[in-house]
Amino acid sequence: MSVIAMLRSHPDQLSHTDVLSRCIDACADCQETCISCSDACLGERELSRLVTCIRLNLDCAAVCNATANIVTRSNKAGHRQLIEAQLTTCIAFCRACARECERHASMHKHCEVCAKTCAQCAETCNDLLSSMRMPA
Amino acid sequence: MSVIAMLRSHPDQLSHTDVLSRCIDACADCQETCISCSDACLGERELSRLVTCIRLNLDCAAVCNATANIVTRSNKAGHRQLIEAQLTTCIAFCRACARECERHASMHKHCEVCAKTCAQCAETCNDLLSSMRMPA
Amino acid sequence: MSVIAMLRSHPDQLSHTDVLSRCIDACADCQETCISCSDACLGERELSRLVTCIRLNLDCAAVCNATANIVTRSNKAGHRQLIEAQLTTCIAFCRACARECERHASMHKHCEVCAKTCAQCAETCNDLLSSMRMPA
Amino acid sequence: MSVIAMLRSHPDQLSHTDVLSRCIDACADCQETCISCSDACLGERELSRLVTCIRLNLDCAAVCNATANIVTRSNKAGHRQLIEAQLTTCIAFCRACARECERHASMHKHCEVCAKTCAQCAETCNDLLSSMRMPA
Repeated sequence: MSVIAMLRSHPDQLSHTDVLSRCIDACADCQETCISCSDACLGERELSRLVTCIRLNLDCAAVCNATANIVTRSNKAGHRQLIEAQLTTCIAFCRACARECERHASMHKHCEVCAKTCAQCAETCNDLLSSMRMPA
Repeated sequence: MSVIAMLRSHPDQLSHTDVLSRCIDACADCQETCISCSDACLGERELSRLVTCIRLNLDCAAVCNATANIVTRSNKAGHRQLIEAQLTTCIAFCRACARECERHASMHKHCEVCAKTCAQCAETCNDLLSSMRMPA
Repeated sequence: MSVIAMLRSHPDQLSHTDVLSRCIDACADCQETCISCSDACLGERELSRLVTCIRLNLDCAAVCNATANIVTRSNKAGHRQLIEAQLTTCIAFCRACARECERHASMHKHCEVCAKTCAQCAETCNDLLSSMRMPA
Repeated sequence: MSVIAMLRSHPDQLSHTDVLSRCIDACADCQETCISCSDACLGERELSRLVTCIRLNLDCAAVCNATANIVTRSNKAGHRQLIEAQLTTCIAFCRACARECERHASMHKHCEVCAKTCAQCAETCNDLLSSMRMPA
């Protein structure tokens, strides 16, 4: 991923570039993993048990896409609370999707991988949230 | 928009279909209006004064896209809090974008239209939030 | 939808604003309808017959979202071929999704509505494509 | 990125999983890089020279997002032509964005990185296109 190189060459002096780039990468990864998990679930035989999983996969992908997009533009003076709201909402979706995928992890390898990726994304979003609340 | 016809033919018995379809339509409208406003701002001469406006336009478009997507799948038993978190975050972005566009409304007609569309979207999201908190 | 008011207040003199705004609205409508159809399909009993429909719904929603976004920025001198490529691809996805939904239209009202919305979107994209190829 | 692990655990036997996962990762990377480049451009002093670059960045991000989404669901029998159309359109946008960023690469490091990332994404999409046209 080339995001870290991008953030370092930004004309504004961005703070927290390391944790920021990890958050963007984690959200992009989580989006793709959730879309992939929803499609793998659609191919499973006991599909009817995976409907909630598919819906949460698609929700989580949508929120992660918005989050990656928004935190990339996090240098808006006076709008820190918006970024915090987005991160908090993203963490809630990632955790809910991780919990649901976890329920199917012993049956489906793709749910096991997706559960870990969502949990990791929630943690990385939380790291950025903590950084933003500390003095730079 | 054909969303109301879709919600009424959903196999699950969805509640709040009227306010739900208005919210989805408002979010879709707000997304397109914000993208259009960001592009109109890029064509203005005093572009440098509109940088925050463009950034908030793009953020608001990203959040509204996720919200429309997520509330369309609002029939997930036990996940009402996720929808509420998404709606609350969306309202915050719509209001911030409306306030910023309002500052340029006397100069730029597109910012005036966008401010109204964002404020309307925030109100419609709030209506859905209120409906969800009341007994169906 | 407020898109037509936005296009008319754009500082660049946009051509084809009527057909352009209809195309943006049709893509936004098609995106929301396809997401709604995919979720309604997930709630149906004979879900396993609707897997291809769900996948095409999600694909069509993704392409329509990109198309609405891109044609809103269609005023890029020298890049007409890019817009034409995007519209052509979008038409192909809308027609494929319409055909698949049509197969289930007699069973599921949501597929009937979605088939019409996709076909309408393909037609509107085609109108814009024709306009762009004619002298303004 | 965990996409390769996801594709390998998909219940359908996917072909080309290596080139497919590289394409998904390249599109996700290109999307984030383009959004980051558009925001960095917005912070530059000679912003007015970068308007076309910003517009192409945003277009390229939108197309790459759709492409990553769609090729993840590439296992739709009988719909190979749709994937090929999406990849072809994506390559056109990535190349146009790479060319525009290249023009500013000596002035702005973020445009230099973005030009390379877009060119790389075009190449990776082209690899997948070639794979799909060969017997599996």
